[in-house]
Amino acid sequence: MTDTKRVLSGMRPTGPLHLGNYHGALANWVKIQEQYDCFFFIADWHALTSDYEKPDKISGFVKNMILDWLSVGLSPEKSTLFVQSHIKEHAELFLILSMITPVSWLERNPTYKDQIVQLSNKDLSTFGFLGYPVLQAADIIIYKANGVPVGIDQVPHVEITREIARRFNYLYGNMFPEPQAILTETPKLLGTDRRKMSKSYDNAIYLSDTPEQISVNVSRMITDPQRARKDDPGNPEVCNVFDFHKLYSNSSTVEEINHQCRTAKIGCVDCKKIMAKNLAEALKPIREKRSFYESHPKLVEEIMQNGDDKARSIAKQTMEEVRFKVKI
Amino acid sequence: MTDTKRVLSGMRPTGPLHLGNYHGALANWVKIQEQYDCFFFIADWHALTSDYEKPDKISGFVKNMILDWLSVGLSPEKSTLFVQSHIKEHAELFLILSMITPVSWLERNPTYKDQIVQLSNKDLSTFGFLGYPVLQAADIIIYKANGVPVGIDQVPHVEITREIARRFNYLYGNMFPEPQAILTETPKLLGTDRRKMSKSYDNAIYLSDTPEQISVNVSRMITDPQRARKDDPGNPEVCNVFDFHKLYSNSSTVEEINHQCRTAKIGCVDCKKIMAKNLAEALKPIREKRSFYESHPKLVEEIMQNGDDKARSIAKQTMEEVRFKVKI
Repeated sequence: MTDTKRVLSGMRPTGPLHLGNYHGALANWVKIQEQYDCFFFIADWHALTSDYEKPDKISGFVKNMILDWLSVGLSPEKSTLFVQSHIKEHAELFLILSMITPVSWLERNPTYKDQIVQLSNKDLSTFGFLGYPVLQAADIIIYKANGVPVGIDQVPHVEITREIARRFNYLYGNMFPEPQAILTETPKLLGTDRRKMSKSYDNAIYLSDTPEQISVNVSRMITDPQRARKDDPGNPEVCNVFDFHKLYSNSSTVEEINHQCRTAKIGCVDCKKIMAKNLAEALKPIREKRSFYESHPKLVEEIMQNGDDKARSIAKQTMEEVRFKVKI
Repeated sequence: MTDTKRVLSGMRPTGPLHLGNYHGALANWVKIQEQYDCFFFIADWHALTSDYEKPDKISGFVKNMILDWLSVGLSPEKSTLFVQSHIKEHAELFLILSMITPVSWLERNPTYKDQIVQLSNKDLSTFGFLGYPVLQAADIIIYKANGVPVGIDQVPHVEITREIARRFNYLYGNMFPEPQAILTETPKLLGTDRRKMSKSYDNAIYLSDTPEQISVNVSRMITDPQRARKDDPGNPEVCNVFDFHKLYSNSSTVEEINHQCRTAKIGCVDCKKIMAKNLAEALKPIREKRSFYESHPKLVEEIMQNGDDKARSIAKQTMEEVRFKVKI
């Protein structure tokens, strides 16, 4: 086991998980837990950076996220699953790292100003929001992670983590590995309105959706915008439904749909029905697992307790080392 | 006891304590511990804001500060004495308060830029230095302190603490009192070179100085700069040694020195000898107490352990309330 690299990633509990989250991160996590010593955490303190004015829903989202994770196949035997705020040591390391992190590193963080613009309905000009890469650095290096699976937009954050780890090592002696960003390749998959799938756009298909909900949501999907009537030939290359087919229908169906669409032999309504059925079928094992865990709340609690305990014992050990190095 | 107001203050462990520290803060602390439920803490995490590049000495200064405190008469029976970094809950509250504190409140903190200029030999442009009023707020409100004894230059910090407490109460429900600044009146007392007494100016007389060290240091003191020869009459009003007399000699001696100096009947050398003797005498009980505690390290350890335990149990209780209010 000593050669197994440790990998860590987290998710902010801001709502139920949808297909965008699944293909953007979760599917990859399920895969890499076979190769790496994986730590996955629910970043509830990070959720506070944007939702501090209305934090009421965070704890519900945390409970829901655990169910989502277990449903898609994150395995408590293979991975350590835990909740950030249950490991107080993150806060202590955040405080110590804050002392060695130049403000300029945070101000030049490209996603900082992006997010302030994107979430303009929230007041994000807080000290905590400015410093969330410092908290992320603490989250990562407290487990001495070697790799962090991220999307391309998160790469600058991993870079700040590497810089902070390097600075700590320089000031107090070598202790932390510099974690590598592990880029996740994600298939193209948009929301029902062809924008990025997101809870706030109300265009998402959730992992926990019933076949009926899936069918309704898929029926609302925007297809090839050029195809006005059923008799017009369509172009699958620009059709969001076709992208879903490629993920959820078998290859002969994909081939058939491709041909029938281009020759106007199938209309969008029927095409969507086929896709919705295949999608609902593909998500069935996830729904079944979810319903199993929903009916075994004690088991879920035990799983998280175990994950918390394992994470905490490592974090505690790291902090002892940190205090020894910093001599405080 | 329910009517006794709680008061809290802290000191950064950056070196042995001198007469400036004593008259600027400690003497007042010894007095107010008779009236209030006092919490005094050694702010070692705060010391890291300026000394993060060379933190090696902090832990030694912490040990020394405890001895200084006990020597001047801070009483473990009357006050709760503890070390900041031993109470991890401060870090957790710091993290949560950071989420609700606007960066602009910290940037407009008048001492922020002052200190950056004053300590220009250190790189203070860190995230932790920008946020040290947030950590101070956590230090104070985690004990629900009603008052904070401070010098006039620290009043803006207490104001930020009040604002942060108010914001927490507004967002999550009433929980924290808004602490009042309790202004400490301090007698005029300069260093041996007539600048502000400070370790970094090498002009300080320390509480732990022996009579011999006191005598040497006093002999170097600058007196009335206008008095060039012993035969010139002096002006006690502008003489630093005379300010010391007023604190350490009895009133008839003060009267006599005043007269003899103005009439050139006593020279500075003799005047200093009298003052040094009285000063050494006045500090004798402090030296004796210090030597007692130095020879009883286990007792000192126990005292601090008890203080830590008491502080921790209150901080833990507050954090449970905080988590309940913030729902995280």
